[in-house]
Amino acid sequence: MRGPGRRRGPGRRPGAPDTRGEILGAARAEFAAKGFDATSVRAIAARAGVDPALVHHYFGTKEKVFVAAMELTIDPAELAETVAAGPVDELAERFVRMFLSVWGNPVTRAPFLALLRSAIGHETAALLLRQFITSIVLARVRPLLDGPDVDLRLELMASHLVGTALLRYVIKAEPLASASEDELVALVAPTLQRYVTPGG
Amino acid sequence: MRGPGRRRGPGRRPGAPDTRGEILGAARAEFAAKGFDATSVRAIAARAGVDPALVHHYFGTKEKVFVAAMELTIDPAELAETVAAGPVDELAERFVRMFLSVWGNPVTRAPFLALLRSAIGHETAALLLRQFITSIVLARVRPLLDGPDVDLRLELMASHLVGTALLRYVIKAEPLASASEDELVALVAPTLQRYVTPGG
Repeated sequence: MRGPGRRRGPGRRPGAPDTRGEILGAARAEFAAKGFDATSVRAIAARAGVDPALVHHYFGTKEKVFVAAMELTIDPAELAETVAAGPVDELAERFVRMFLSVWGNPVTRAPFLALLRSAIGHETAALLLRQFITSIVLARVRPLLDGPDVDLRLELMASHLVGTALLRYVIKAEPLASASEDELVALVAPTLQRYVTPGG
Repeated sequence: MRGPGRRRGPGRRPGAPDTRGEILGAARAEFAAKGFDATSVRAIAARAGVDPALVHHYFGTKEKVFVAAMELTIDPAELAETVAAGPVDELAERFVRMFLSVWGNPVTRAPFLALLRSAIGHETAALLLRQFITSIVLARVRPLLDGPDVDLRLELMASHLVGTALLRYVIKAEPLASASEDELVALVAPTLQRYVTPGG
C-alpha cells in the first residue's frame, strides 16, 4: 500500500494530507472515464494510491463514494428506498413528490443539473447519468412492478419527471414554473401511476 | 435604407454580398439577446442594416427567420399544425409520433439538442427555448383543449416528450433507446392523452 497523501498540493500542511479529497478526485476521474457500473472501489483506491479499505472507511459503499464525488448533497439511493416503501398504488405520488422536493431546492438541484448538462454532448457523462438513473434509482423501485415492459415503463416515468424538472426549473415555462407542488402532484401522479400499475 | 452587404467579410466576392447570411447572423444575435417574443423583424433588419421588407422577402414571417437562424431544418410551426389537424382523441398519438420522428433523425435532432443544451445554464437561451415551446409549438395545439389548466396540461405533455427524447436519444437508457416507435406510441400516447382529454 502506498501511503495516503503521496501527491501533495501546494499549501497542504505536512501531516494532514487530504486523503478524503484525493479519493474523491480519483473517484470523479474513474466514474467519468468508465461510468458507474464499471468503476470499482479497488480502481478508485489504486488511482488515489490508497488501500481499498480506506475508501470503505471514509465512505462506505461505491454508491456513497459516487454521492460524495458528485457532491449530490442527498443520497438518491436512500430517496429511492423511501419511494419504494409504502403502498404500490401510491408509488407514483411518492416519486413525484420526492422528485419535486429535490429539484425545488437549488442546493440539491445544482449537482443533478450539472450531471444532466454534461450528459448532453458528452458520451461518458451520458453513460454515467444513464447508469445513475437505472442502477441507483430505478433498480430500487423495479421489484415492485409487475407485468410487461417493466424497465421501459420505469424509464418513461423517469422521462416525464426529468422533462418536468427541465421545463419547470430550468426553462421556466409558465404556468408550470409557478404551479404549486400539490397542483402538479394532482395532475402528474395519476398519469405516472399508469406506468406503475397499467391495469389499475 | 442602408445597402445590403455593408459589412463585408474576408473572401466575399464584390457584387455578391451575403445579405441572407447577414440577416441570419443579426437574427441569432437578436433572438439570443431578447428571446423570441420580444424580437421584431424590424430590429433584425436594423441590426443587419437592411430594410425590413428584405427580411420578409428572404424568409417570410418572424417564425421562418427563427427556423432558418436556428438551422432547424424543419419548421416546428408546420409540424404543430399537422399535430393539431385530425381527431382530438388521437392528438397525443400524433404528437408522440411527430416528436419521435424529429428526434429520431440526427439531422433534425441536432439543432434542438443545441437549443436544449444552451438552455441549461444560460438564462437567455432558456428564455428562447421557453418561448419557442409555448409560442410556436403549444400555441397551435392549445385551441383544441378544453377544461381547466390547459396550459399546464400542455406543458406537462411537452415535459414528458422532452424527457423521453433526452433519455432515449441522449442518455440512451435501455430498453428505452432500443424500443420501437410503435412500442413507445402504445405506452406513451394513452398516457399523454390524459392531459389532452382528462375526462376521456
